[in-house]
Amino acid sequence: MEDFRQFLAALCAAAAAGLLSIVFVLIWILQFREGFAWDGGPAEFNWHPVLIVIGFIFLQGTAIIVYRLPWTWQCSKLTMKFVHAGLNLSAFILAVVALVAAFDFHNSKNIPNMYSLHSWLGLIAVILYSLQLVLGVAMYLIPVTPVSWRAAFMPLHVFSGHFLFGSVIAVALMGITEKLIFALKNPGYSGSPPEAIFVNVLGVLLVVFGVLILWIGTRASWKRPSDQILHTLHTNGGGEDTNTKVGPDLSQLSDETDAEASGDVRRRSNKCDAD
Amino acid sequence: MEDFRQFLAALCAAAAAGLLSIVFVLIWILQFREGFAWDGGPAEFNWHPVLIVIGFIFLQGTAIIVYRLPWTWQCSKLTMKFVHAGLNLSAFILAVVALVAAFDFHNSKNIPNMYSLHSWLGLIAVILYSLQLVLGVAMYLIPVTPVSWRAAFMPLHVFSGHFLFGSVIAVALMGITEKLIFALKNPGYSGSPPEAIFVNVLGVLLVVFGVLILWIGTRASWKRPSDQILHTLHTNGGGEDTNTKVGPDLSQLSDETDAEASGDVRRRSNKCDAD
Repeated sequence: MEDFRQFLAALCAAAAAGLLSIVFVLIWILQFREGFAWDGGPAEFNWHPVLIVIGFIFLQGTAIIVYRLPWTWQCSKLTMKFVHAGLNLSAFILAVVALVAAFDFHNSKNIPNMYSLHSWLGLIAVILYSLQLVLGVAMYLIPVTPVSWRAAFMPLHVFSGHFLFGSVIAVALMGITEKLIFALKNPGYSGSPPEAIFVNVLGVLLVVFGVLILWIGTRASWKRPSDQILHTLHTNGGGEDTNTKVGPDLSQLSDETDAEASGDVRRRSNKCDAD
Repeated sequence: MEDFRQFLAALCAAAAAGLLSIVFVLIWILQFREGFAWDGGPAEFNWHPVLIVIGFIFLQGTAIIVYRLPWTWQCSKLTMKFVHAGLNLSAFILAVVALVAAFDFHNSKNIPNMYSLHSWLGLIAVILYSLQLVLGVAMYLIPVTPVSWRAAFMPLHVFSGHFLFGSVIAVALMGITEKLIFALKNPGYSGSPPEAIFVNVLGVLLVVFGVLILWIGTRASWKRPSDQILHTLHTNGGGEDTNTKVGPDLSQLSDETDAEASGDVRRRSNKCDAD
């Protein structure tokens, strides 16, 4: 891999920002708020931010960059597709539970649903994410889908994935803003109590996680090389060192479409061969 | 240009969403709010959303895609760099005036500054945008900057530009959320009065504008071809038709770095030659 140290630094920083976001949202709920319950009260609502940060942000971000981890290049493309799809499916399920928690809380407290821009864009994001999931499975996991369709759809699949990820973070930042305005009293949000500062920092951490995931996910030289190249490296004995430099000439061959479009994934074992 | 019709459709849709956003924010302020003034009151604050939408969102979005308009490919790269820098500088100036309006209003009403996540991320975005401007001018408009530096910095310049644009829209959505919660009374935001619905639609329009600009700005086949290719087309008589198909083989030669790094812009006229 080209610029392996830079990749490693970005990856460690992303992991740190992502895990710290999870720690921050948990401390927020357990220390400053009412903790967790499933009783229609504020403690049920609290599942909403926690599941969004863990699922819809951290797991979705991990799913975006999972192909780019050089340690996974020993695994077949099909295995990695299942990992990618599994992470996205988990993120979707947690997002749906998070939505149910918010609606349940609103209904039991007679708070209207779907009036805010946060709720509009959040629901649109969940619907488009489910569409992305269904189309992704139909295109890349159903063996009969023509290779030409896979290749044509890939740029849209990648762009939509990145855009939805960024949008979900934006919607989370709006949700944080709403929650702090509604929940903080004496002093209110504008009085900058410790909870306000703490949760603002959580918002900044989510943005840092977002920018690092999108940076890692959009560098052409960090793409998973096409299976032909990996096969060549393996048979030449070069595949055993994960630091093996697949230089720009080789890595650029693996553009958005060829790794998917070549169809060779179906000719390879779907076992993760750690040779 | 490859897929010229698809490009034109995306461009028209982006222009429609962007211009409609400006119309919506103006109607919001003139119809539902107190209009404009510079008196420390709410009518001074109203410059804030209007200048952000016109400057920091619409002009910045236009600056991002201005190289990709095939009608500008007859102009020298240097001319287009000045257009790109000029649009970004205008966006920055309007953003600063928008900030002054918000601070002025807060100060005259004794509302604390810089307590909300919106204000934190907004100020960070303005600071990073000014850094992006200064570095962009230093790298690409000062003739002595080494070509190797230009090439090395270009991926970061492009990524930062796209990320900052997306972030500014996210911050605007948080600002809309804040303003509607604070300003709407009897019925409040949760009562979904016409103003709430109208401004939520403005938020959706901003997201639509954002996704279209980022789609146009990230398609490899819609890049401005390198000056060498344009020169060849001109001397072969092919440059007179702006619809001339610079196919994938040619357009892919013009990657993020070569158009900037080739340095041939300094050997060409900086007049927009409409031959």
